[in-house]
Amino acid sequence: LKHLIDSHITIVGLGLMGGSLGGALRGQCQSVAGVSRKAETIEAAMACGLVDWGTTELAEGVRQADMVVLAGPVRVIGRQLAEIGPLLKEGCVVFDLGSTKARVVKHMDALPPHVQAIGGHPMCGKETSGIRAADPELYRGRSFILCPALRTSPSSLGLALELVQAIGATPLIIEPERQDFLVATLSHLPYMLACALVSTADATTSPDPMAWKIVAGGFRDTSRVSASDVTMMLDILMTNQANVRDAVNACITHLQSLVRLVEAGDEEALRAALTKIRATRLEMFP
Amino acid sequence: LKHLIDSHITIVGLGLMGGSLGGALRGQCQSVAGVSRKAETIEAAMACGLVDWGTTELAEGVRQADMVVLAGPVRVIGRQLAEIGPLLKEGCVVFDLGSTKARVVKHMDALPPHVQAIGGHPMCGKETSGIRAADPELYRGRSFILCPALRTSPSSLGLALELVQAIGATPLIIEPERQDFLVATLSHLPYMLACALVSTADATTSPDPMAWKIVAGGFRDTSRVSASDVTMMLDILMTNQANVRDAVNACITHLQSLVRLVEAGDEEALRAALTKIRATRLEMFP
Repeated sequence: LKHLIDSHITIVGLGLMGGSLGGALRGQCQSVAGVSRKAETIEAAMACGLVDWGTTELAEGVRQADMVVLAGPVRVIGRQLAEIGPLLKEGCVVFDLGSTKARVVKHMDALPPHVQAIGGHPMCGKETSGIRAADPELYRGRSFILCPALRTSPSSLGLALELVQAIGATPLIIEPERQDFLVATLSHLPYMLACALVSTADATTSPDPMAWKIVAGGFRDTSRVSASDVTMMLDILMTNQANVRDAVNACITHLQSLVRLVEAGDEEALRAALTKIRATRLEMFP
Repeated sequence: LKHLIDSHITIVGLGLMGGSLGGALRGQCQSVAGVSRKAETIEAAMACGLVDWGTTELAEGVRQADMVVLAGPVRVIGRQLAEIGPLLKEGCVVFDLGSTKARVVKHMDALPPHVQAIGGHPMCGKETSGIRAADPELYRGRSFILCPALRTSPSSLGLALELVQAIGATPLIIEPERQDFLVATLSHLPYMLACALVSTADATTSPDPMAWKIVAGGFRDTSRVSASDVTMMLDILMTNQANVRDAVNACITHLQSLVRLVEAGDEEALRAALTKIRATRLEMFP
């Protein structure tokens, strides 16, 4: 049985999520290494105390690792899972931070037998990206989804649980398909709505210079996630197409029924709907 | 010419907006009075130092006022404008804080000739309401729309400008119809989207107890304004029906074209759209 405190951990991809994880893990394991395509990213990560050492060479970075965490965009994780197997030592546990899990976990099941794997998805983020935005406190108090693959051993699950708890997050074990269905509505739909809002304002009110002066807190918050990293979001949407489509279509139906009540001036039904929605929101975020 | 420093001001409606205005104005004018239907609201406003004195009687509260600020929901403002005229002294300036302006300003034009009037709409708020949420700093740094009525004198506009500057806000003068068109997209559409998001999640993912645990920052921010006061929002939507309908329909079109790109897997077009949206959002909120 392997424990976090005895483990050498390598994080592949030093963006916001990978960099923050490094900072949160340092001192709670044997070492934290970072792999990035760019030497300057590694220098920045070391300067900020987020990793103990780093390399631009994937093979060198993962060779001695007890645990490898893939922290790039989802489809990059897929490609890395297809090539990383032979580079890893016996018993190494591969983990990831990708936002969609069905495809990643399928790739994990195809790893060579001497390697272990488990999928992960931390429920946090920021609209800023990159190593400069990294924050070792990013994961504290947040939920962290774990999706065991068919072949995940109890010992590998145990190591992932230790990691999640070490960074102050709360682990939740969910099947990959169920997680992809849930995050389509809870994460990807908010992104699509934020994008549609900005796109609508850009097309209708932005030509009026006054619009830019009166845009207020409601618009700012509702549109915040539209500033998310595009490559990351593109990978997420492209690996969860059917669920995203269903969530958006369901939302359009709800939007249409609300606007019909506004148009018809059906105050009683509109008040009932808005009151129920407000109560649900307050229950979700007390 | 009347100045703020010489004025007795009466605020009718001591909720979040009215209470905050009182706190921001005290000490910058002769006196701030509050009118509320409930004696306990007046007591709370006085205990918090938001008004100098208060009354549950509208006639008593406004009799000596140099300026009356109507701070209730928009349709309540409409009813009050219809009855308040005879209660006011010669030269009194009636002002309001309602979120839609075309109807309010039309009511203002119907006031008796001894009374002046100008419409106002501060671009701020909170999802909490009531006197307990009042904050004298609420208006600082925010835009504050002024909509002169046909009969608004330069002196009344000047007094309204002094008030806006005294509370730390930036005045913007806009025609009422243009303001209602702009806020439909910039304020009311975000509310409708936030409501549709919560409603969708409630219908599709909420039956899964795991959903409540993984709901994260993106959902929280995108849905925040759905917790707004229902009576206030109902009045806003009901006095801006056509603009709200048009804004929601435009947004549905944008949403559908984004989801079509996701469904079709048209990455090049989707990346271009999301990149443009992200740049617009960053330009709006640098």
